[in-house]
Amino acid sequence: MASVDHIWHGCRLATLSPSRQGLGLVEDGLIAAADGRIVYAGPAADAPLSLDAEQRTNCDGRWITPGLVDCHTHLVYGGNRAQEFEQRLAGASYEEIARAGGGIVSTVKATRQADTEQLMVASLPRLDALIAEGVTTVEIKSGYGLELDTERRQLQAARKLGAKRAVSIQTTFLGAHTVPPEMKGNSGAYIDAVCNAMLPQIAAAGLADAVDAFCEGIAFSPEETARVFAKAQTLGLPVRLHADQLSNLHGAALAARFGALSADHLEYADDEGIAAMARAGTIAVVLPGAFYFIREEKAPPIESMRRHGARIALATDSNPGTSPLTSLLLAMNMGATLFRLTVDECISAVTREAARALGRFDDIGSLERGKYCDLAIWNIERPAELVYRIGFNPLHARVWHGDSHAVAAGLL
Amino acid sequence: MASVDHIWHGCRLATLSPSRQGLGLVEDGLIAAADGRIVYAGPAADAPLSLDAEQRTNCDGRWITPGLVDCHTHLVYGGNRAQEFEQRLAGASYEEIARAGGGIVSTVKATRQADTEQLMVASLPRLDALIAEGVTTVEIKSGYGLELDTERRQLQAARKLGAKRAVSIQTTFLGAHTVPPEMKGNSGAYIDAVCNAMLPQIAAAGLADAVDAFCEGIAFSPEETARVFAKAQTLGLPVRLHADQLSNLHGAALAARFGALSADHLEYADDEGIAAMARAGTIAVVLPGAFYFIREEKAPPIESMRRHGARIALATDSNPGTSPLTSLLLAMNMGATLFRLTVDECISAVTREAARALGRFDDIGSLERGKYCDLAIWNIERPAELVYRIGFNPLHARVWHGDSHAVAAGLL
Repeated sequence: MASVDHIWHGCRLATLSPSRQGLGLVEDGLIAAADGRIVYAGPAADAPLSLDAEQRTNCDGRWITPGLVDCHTHLVYGGNRAQEFEQRLAGASYEEIARAGGGIVSTVKATRQADTEQLMVASLPRLDALIAEGVTTVEIKSGYGLELDTERRQLQAARKLGAKRAVSIQTTFLGAHTVPPEMKGNSGAYIDAVCNAMLPQIAAAGLADAVDAFCEGIAFSPEETARVFAKAQTLGLPVRLHADQLSNLHGAALAARFGALSADHLEYADDEGIAAMARAGTIAVVLPGAFYFIREEKAPPIESMRRHGARIALATDSNPGTSPLTSLLLAMNMGATLFRLTVDECISAVTREAARALGRFDDIGSLERGKYCDLAIWNIERPAELVYRIGFNPLHARVWHGDSHAVAAGLL
Repeated sequence: MASVDHIWHGCRLATLSPSRQGLGLVEDGLIAAADGRIVYAGPAADAPLSLDAEQRTNCDGRWITPGLVDCHTHLVYGGNRAQEFEQRLAGASYEEIARAGGGIVSTVKATRQADTEQLMVASLPRLDALIAEGVTTVEIKSGYGLELDTERRQLQAARKLGAKRAVSIQTTFLGAHTVPPEMKGNSGAYIDAVCNAMLPQIAAAGLADAVDAFCEGIAFSPEETARVFAKAQTLGLPVRLHADQLSNLHGAALAARFGALSADHLEYADDEGIAAMARAGTIAVVLPGAFYFIREEKAPPIESMRRHGARIALATDSNPGTSPLTSLLLAMNMGATLFRLTVDECISAVTREAARALGRFDDIGSLERGKYCDLAIWNIERPAELVYRIGFNPLHARVWHGDSHAVAAGLL
């Protein structure tokens, strides 16, 4: 049989293959890769006998999962909000902070002041923190520019991050994140600008893999959201939605109606919305980091998701205002501890289902023939350890598109 | 003036010196060390003019805090409880898990089966995770042996960890952690063994720097706790207490009555107990990792601590059953997010007050002349970033007893 580039053997696999039960576990596994893609992943005993490789790695019984996928982040921005965090703990009200120029407006200001290179450099340590935990694909949204040039720079900075590191970046245009300060009270006119000026140019430049919006009392109405979605679809871009985070505006059902890839947050989504999502194949992306940080008390309706068969993904929501979180492992623990997701749900939520939320499950998210050879190799005795531990990183090595990156060598 | 070994300049300092306000900030700071101790820490402008050093490090404006102190851990144990975590999320009750040999009994069993070297090796990755975040002193308790030999091995393993890494280890004998399974229902007889057999031998071997107990309905009564404390004091050992975590047994007041170094957890402590602690100088050690992990809803009485002037420390409580946490930075964020501690309270809680909780403030916990030169050097723009971020490690370098350990070089 054909020679391949690299074989990993002596490993245990969580393949996440939909054709296997649960996490698709394989006790004595083997993975073979050629030209960056998996040519075999499964029991060593079933591997083609004649497999031959330039490079062979004995994994000494370590576990291998698909490279992790962080499917919802706002990783690229200027400044940070540590000062505001400090003020709030010292007793300042949200109003006082807003009057002092704090809140999202401060991030918009800092982001607008930064050029593409500065945005890339500021975001790199955050990306590196994710990568260090075995993440091989990261979604990054715009949404702190709120005008064409800065939104473009954010997406360009996201693409540059992908060129700088061995990681896949998926970009999402989130012009409809909030009404820009200079158009306060005039959300309709801003949505006009998003649909007629910003979105077409971003799409023409090939800068966005998807389009997102924030449907909420403090952001945009369902009708405004629907306008953005309709425009995105005429441009051939898939849509996603920040839905029902703080109140129930029936964002889940709206997302389903547009066949959205995902609806995200969902704390206040109702049963009908979840049922509609399940029917539409819209992934439920839960974001426990934001739930934790803003001290929300209503958890998303996980039981309803299970009952209707809505698929559940999990992400960091890394952002300066409501989730300054750069650990997908910790997001998994929070998903289990705060939302009572099971271990299998948490692990599939950052691999298979996260890949689906990005519309990328053909290429990533499981260990299957034909997919990119993106692997996370772990120093653990059972997959549950990835979820159980808090603030501990058991990654041994990371492989992106077939290329190995040892943790110890600092080559992540 | 005398030549010193090392000067760090171009730095901003959070000295935590009690003679300065708040965190004791110094904008243009300088630290000089000789023979592992600080000979000067303060404004560069006030440093002795003739200071001369073999080694000079320009910190390029970075912030320096005292090396962090994790003052409450159960870091040394055998096995882990990931499987039990998984079962509980899958719906198993505590009873079912206990019947299947789970719970603390499973950790006791795994710890008893391990020799000293195995315990040390199993604990090293956990210690390394703490060290990687700038921790220079770690307290480690026994309490998973519940019989002399294993308790001794746990404390020996803790001491070995200190020989293996550039870190100070403080050991605490916690024989009175829970009633061992073989003496179930006979706590009085076990306390006899702790007081008459275990404690004197542990003390004679110099294996314990302090003595702790768990005063709780599921562990030991206030009377049993008092017996352990009285014995410890006859042996000249300071005491600490797991107090009022799950119910109010007036553990806070009991700890104060014995002049304990600290009372820890304190979720259910009452105002009188906190007032007594403040009068006695007993430090309140809050442990938000356990609060988070067991989904406790009652936060410790922080307002009462502030009102009475009880000093607040903060620790990971790293343990396999209720806080599998190995990040003191994350413990700080949890202290702020879950308990509403201010930024200054969180930072002093893992430096100055944690040192006091160990009875070590003469030697560590602040940047002051005469203390060990234990430093954490950070890539941050303001101290609040240490508390604000979640799952991100901005440590640039760590210094233990005057010796520098660069993060990048993996020499932590």
